Amino acid sequence: MVCYAGMTSLHTLCEQLAATAIERDREGGLPKRERDLIRASGLLKLTVPTRFGGDGQPISAMLDAVRTIARVDPALAHVFAFHHLMLYSVRLYASEQQWSVVYREAADGRTFWGNALNPKDPRTQLRKHGDGYLLDGSKSFCSGAGDSDRLIVSAQYDGKLVVAMVPTRRAGITVRGDWDAIGQRQTDSGTVDFSALAIHEHELLRTPGPLGSVFAGLRSCIAQAILVHVYLGIAEGAFAELRHVKGPSTIQRLRAGELYVALEAAAALAERARASLDASWTREEALTPEERARASVAITLAKVATTRAGLDVTTRFFELLGARSALRPASLDRYFRNLRTHTLHDPVDEKLTELGAFALEGTAPTPGFYS
Amino acid sequence: MVCYAGMTSLHTLCEQLAATAIERDREGGLPKRERDLIRASGLLKLTVPTRFGGDGQPISAMLDAVRTIARVDPALAHVFAFHHLMLYSVRLYASEQQWSVVYREAADGRTFWGNALNPKDPRTQLRKHGDGYLLDGSKSFCSGAGDSDRLIVSAQYDGKLVVAMVPTRRAGITVRGDWDAIGQRQTDSGTVDFSALAIHEHELLRTPGPLGSVFAGLRSCIAQAILVHVYLGIAEGAFAELRHVKGPSTIQRLRAGELYVALEAAAALAERARASLDASWTREEALTPEERARASVAITLAKVATTRAGLDVTTRFFELLGARSALRPASLDRYFRNLRTHTLHDPVDEKLTELGAFALEGTAPTPGFYS
Amino acid sequence: MVCYAGMTSLHTLCEQLAATAIERDREGGLPKRERDLIRASGLLKLTVPTRFGGDGQPISAMLDAVRTIARVDPALAHVFAFHHLMLYSVRLYASEQQWSVVYREAADGRTFWGNALNPKDPRTQLRKHGDGYLLDGSKSFCSGAGDSDRLIVSAQYDGKLVVAMVPTRRAGITVRGDWDAIGQRQTDSGTVDFSALAIHEHELLRTPGPLGSVFAGLRSCIAQAILVHVYLGIAEGAFAELRHVKGPSTIQRLRAGELYVALEAAAALAERARASLDASWTREEALTPEERARASVAITLAKVATTRAGLDVTTRFFELLGARSALRPASLDRYFRNLRTHTLHDPVDEKLTELGAFALEGTAPTPGFYS
Amino acid sequence: MVCYAGMTSLHTLCEQLAATAIERDREGGLPKRERDLIRASGLLKLTVPTRFGGDGQPISAMLDAVRTIARVDPALAHVFAFHHLMLYSVRLYASEQQWSVVYREAADGRTFWGNALNPKDPRTQLRKHGDGYLLDGSKSFCSGAGDSDRLIVSAQYDGKLVVAMVPTRRAGITVRGDWDAIGQRQTDSGTVDFSALAIHEHELLRTPGPLGSVFAGLRSCIAQAILVHVYLGIAEGAFAELRHVKGPSTIQRLRAGELYVALEAAAALAERARASLDASWTREEALTPEERARASVAITLAKVATTRAGLDVTTRFFELLGARSALRPASLDRYFRNLRTHTLHDPVDEKLTELGAFALEGTAPTPGFYS
Repeated sequence: MVCYAGMTSLHTLCEQLAATAIERDREGGLPKRERDLIRASGLLKLTVPTRFGGDGQPISAMLDAVRTIARVDPALAHVFAFHHLMLYSVRLYASEQQWSVVYREAADGRTFWGNALNPKDPRTQLRKHGDGYLLDGSKSFCSGAGDSDRLIVSAQYDGKLVVAMVPTRRAGITVRGDWDAIGQRQTDSGTVDFSALAIHEHELLRTPGPLGSVFAGLRSCIAQAILVHVYLGIAEGAFAELRHVKGPSTIQRLRAGELYVALEAAAALAERARASLDASWTREEALTPEERARASVAITLAKVATTRAGLDVTTRFFELLGARSALRPASLDRYFRNLRTHTLHDPVDEKLTELGAFALEGTAPTPGFYS
Repeated sequence: MVCYAGMTSLHTLCEQLAATAIERDREGGLPKRERDLIRASGLLKLTVPTRFGGDGQPISAMLDAVRTIARVDPALAHVFAFHHLMLYSVRLYASEQQWSVVYREAADGRTFWGNALNPKDPRTQLRKHGDGYLLDGSKSFCSGAGDSDRLIVSAQYDGKLVVAMVPTRRAGITVRGDWDAIGQRQTDSGTVDFSALAIHEHELLRTPGPLGSVFAGLRSCIAQAILVHVYLGIAEGAFAELRHVKGPSTIQRLRAGELYVALEAAAALAERARASLDASWTREEALTPEERARASVAITLAKVATTRAGLDVTTRFFELLGARSALRPASLDRYFRNLRTHTLHDPVDEKLTELGAFALEGTAPTPGFYS
Repeated sequence: MVCYAGMTSLHTLCEQLAATAIERDREGGLPKRERDLIRASGLLKLTVPTRFGGDGQPISAMLDAVRTIARVDPALAHVFAFHHLMLYSVRLYASEQQWSVVYREAADGRTFWGNALNPKDPRTQLRKHGDGYLLDGSKSFCSGAGDSDRLIVSAQYDGKLVVAMVPTRRAGITVRGDWDAIGQRQTDSGTVDFSALAIHEHELLRTPGPLGSVFAGLRSCIAQAILVHVYLGIAEGAFAELRHVKGPSTIQRLRAGELYVALEAAAALAERARASLDASWTREEALTPEERARASVAITLAKVATTRAGLDVTTRFFELLGARSALRPASLDRYFRNLRTHTLHDPVDEKLTELGAFALEGTAPTPGFYS
Repeated sequence: MVCYAGMTSLHTLCEQLAATAIERDREGGLPKRERDLIRASGLLKLTVPTRFGGDGQPISAMLDAVRTIARVDPALAHVFAFHHLMLYSVRLYASEQQWSVVYREAADGRTFWGNALNPKDPRTQLRKHGDGYLLDGSKSFCSGAGDSDRLIVSAQYDGKLVVAMVPTRRAGITVRGDWDAIGQRQTDSGTVDFSALAIHEHELLRTPGPLGSVFAGLRSCIAQAILVHVYLGIAEGAFAELRHVKGPSTIQRLRAGELYVALEAAAALAERARASLDASWTREEALTPEERARASVAITLAKVATTRAGLDVTTRFFELLGARSALRPASLDRYFRNLRTHTLHDPVDEKLTELGAFALEGTAPTPGFYS
């Protein structure tokens, strides 16, 4: 694990989140206090380049932080990660002039970005209006929109997908707070409504825009790598509960060994994926489709492995802990609920067929929002 | 599936329970209204012999009813089943004089029996007092004790386990209602406290008493077969949610096929177990240790298979239903939570070693409270 | 297990086959001596109705014999089973006049039928010639053709599949004996060449012909049920090798327990399938598509389960037996080789999608040569 | 993959071995010609330090060569690897004076070392005789003893295990050539008999001797890492056969994806293990027990994962290739037979309990000959 300045604050943040995670899982809703703890930690500028005042950490450091937070609070890990994904989206989809401004602002460490870019939900429309544009419609699964300062939003325009960045508090945006799921209950992944929301030309991310270059196509790789590390963190959090097993029998050791192999195999693939992503990132516009494909495949392998290992660990660790582990004060089912909710994001079987096509025929995954 | 008079009421009962099962899973606590619906259904006399005024149905019919109820409400299925297990306990452990009285009373269909026989919790003590006895201490995991009319309770006496039956409302019994688990939330499987509880000689079940004969040893077989059918019902309930999959893809069909094979294999073993148990029951005191061993092995095979198939179905059916299946109104995680809670009862790995000893060496399972 | 007159001869036959099975697996080729042992056993008339001089046993008895033989010699079990499948094919596809003759002849117990009905190989053609027909071309995977007395052969005629029965020794038939596979080495499943083979009108099976009625559609159910029982027998044969484990450890018991559950679950589904097939058979032309679909699904469930359990047992039982179990005199790899070869017959994944379509949408399997 | 001078010769060697691997798997016996090809390749001095005239490659390079060879010929990969393991044994167990001599001789690239160090077989005894010693008895599982130039042999002496190195052609050594297994047929892992074999003082490896220091304890880590890479190579070889799948269906892609994830997860753990071993090696006598434990755990994780992934791939790739993949010319069952034979070496379940003890309690694996 890499060491960086923010690690102390990461450690403190995790302790703060852990203290109330069980209770907040029950309550759901918007974790305003915890979002402010994240702001206070300074970790929101972790990936902002140093020349703009950030910590200049690589993607892998951010992913490691996500994994660490996810061990104790995968919902907050997710919104923390998506903040960075939004910054990466600006970097990859927009012009240097645009991302310079955004990075400079992000260096305050308190501007929290949220997500309203859900390409599967086609209900938002952009239309020309004077010098600028107006945006109408709704988006579902908008993780971290509540209490955010900035939003990335996508919409249909002239039959194509366009992406914009806007201040969340601008008139015309209503964050509904209607997220109510069996897990990841404080990701606030509900609906955002847009009503004649004004968008300025310089807020549109279209130089080069989504999938506008091979490098821009790394956005989905980062998004998927984030999921990998949330899943891995959840699985590791569940596995860590086994510290409560006292005087284990031979069979308990055997079963723990089985879960440990699954977990470490997934972790080893996640390591590979992180390294591959860092290497791709430094290539910038020189990144070739083959290099991107390799990174994508490495991440997809890790995604399947963390999903499966995570399901194994979070459903079977109970067997090592015994009948009393089902009692509610410990809420040990939250590991499964969080993982299951998050791993339905895009189907693991589609990932497997993508991997199979690559392995059998050498077919590179088609760059998109999920591959 | 066998047909019997009570099947209409079973159908009605299931509809009544299904209507509120999601809500009641959230609330937990004592399902007084639903317990009264069970009383009203007449199904509490399902296994009472006809000559005492009952329906005279075999164990398999009761198990089928348990499975059917468990599809929609496995907590109530469990307390319903344990009522019958208590009647069987009296039949197997006590004298004809004792069980004749109990059967006659049970024929009213409204006397609900609960459980305080937990051999793993050694905290209850019986002592001689005048002509009778006094019982002190506490028992955990007392399913269905709340709102019950009669209780079976076990205690240490003279270094041995004795079992007694008592009216729940007798002075000296406090049902604490402290059950709070991640699943099976309305089984009321909490603690019962006993304080100088008076027990009469004719309330002790010791002719022949627990494990007092080969036939008496069937009690644990029935108990385990009940668990099998609760697990099977849960798995079938989850699988039935797949009716909501519209226009399935080839891969969705493949995955559904995989779950279906696991489920039907478990169901086929449960069928075998039911048949074996019915056959053993009719043998009464002529039952040989070998016959009992065969029934026990058949049930244990079904227990492992239903546990595993159930975990598979209740954790993976989400993948067929998609991301929205994690939304909370449907509470689809309850299938997993119920199954996981219940399957920790006694460790499945102990069952596997027991089966392996039988398969490798022909060693019959040692009759006890779990085998 | 049912008891019938032929069981003693079955037992003797199995002992005879077991004595040389390892050696013959190495040699491959045509097991002339063993085929004559089968002839001598009288078991070739097992399923011939009593009124024609046979033993009148139901399909399930034949399947049980197949399973028993497959424990020690799955190659011979397969050709034995296919003899009966050929008789069933005549019964189902031909007129009473035709099958009366065939049954009467089969009652001698020495007429061995072989297979050249492989609908996936389109290379045989039938053409009109005078009063009769001529057949040309080749068929692959013709199990049990070598040393057979009668053959069932399929061919294209007027764009349709027709099926005929012919004496194997008739001029124009060449059994090549070119079968050389990693397993099932003595099934003689090689190529048969036909060159201007004369076929008479009364040798064509077209009243009602293949799939000519719902009842005729049972042929593929019987064929698939035969595969199920060959697989099951192989798995049971491998599992029986575990009798050599002495003084097993807890973990060895656990692992044996795991294999035992998989094996018995598959066996329980096979039982269901057998019962379903016997019931369907007695329905004759009154058999409804729904009844046939139920039988087909029951058999397909068993097919998947026996395939998977078999692969588990035949690859993992080595782990219980230790390093020396890989030494060659015992040839314990033959269980895997036999099973793997046979289970590639038609893809198990197609079976799973078929099952999934039935489970999700209620779609009955389309009657064909494999479903 | 690292690049080094010997890679061209490795490539050539693999082509030479691949050309006859199927045929030689059938024949078994001593692959004299192929052993000479290995001698001619120069790869026998791959790990000999450069200052003694070798190629000075790290353990990881040797392991990668083993994996590469194992893809086409795992039997020869094994004896090639064990040659290097014998050199490492001298380096770790003996004095600098001793290993300097050995390394210098090994730099010729033609001195092939074989193994007679099997600590589980206690039949060899050493006794004092004049200035030297005499060794009597037999050893089983002596891989690569036939046609070897030097042997490492272990024996009981004064109740302790001692290890010696001797020229294979010395009087008193008989290599029986009695290895006949279902797989790894040309590893020549049979029995070696010793009869009054003279051993000189300077041939005993006891400074520090087996397990004589923490660093010396790396020998079993190297041995286990070799197994890992033989298993991985076998699995990769089998997976590479899937290049023959043409126009795969969605389900075939899905299944290939599943095998690919398992394979790459195992490969990623093997990578970690290699890196950990290289790092430990450079630590020499400064290696701490904790560092060794970490390396051991990393290797054990990889061992379980490669075993399981390998079994999956070598038994299921047939399903993608179809019924004709069971035909014998291709001998595709050899992947399974080789893997299964080799993976029984020491029980994977013992590895799992070791891993579980580490994960649950932090217990380091006890240094020995297998951990």
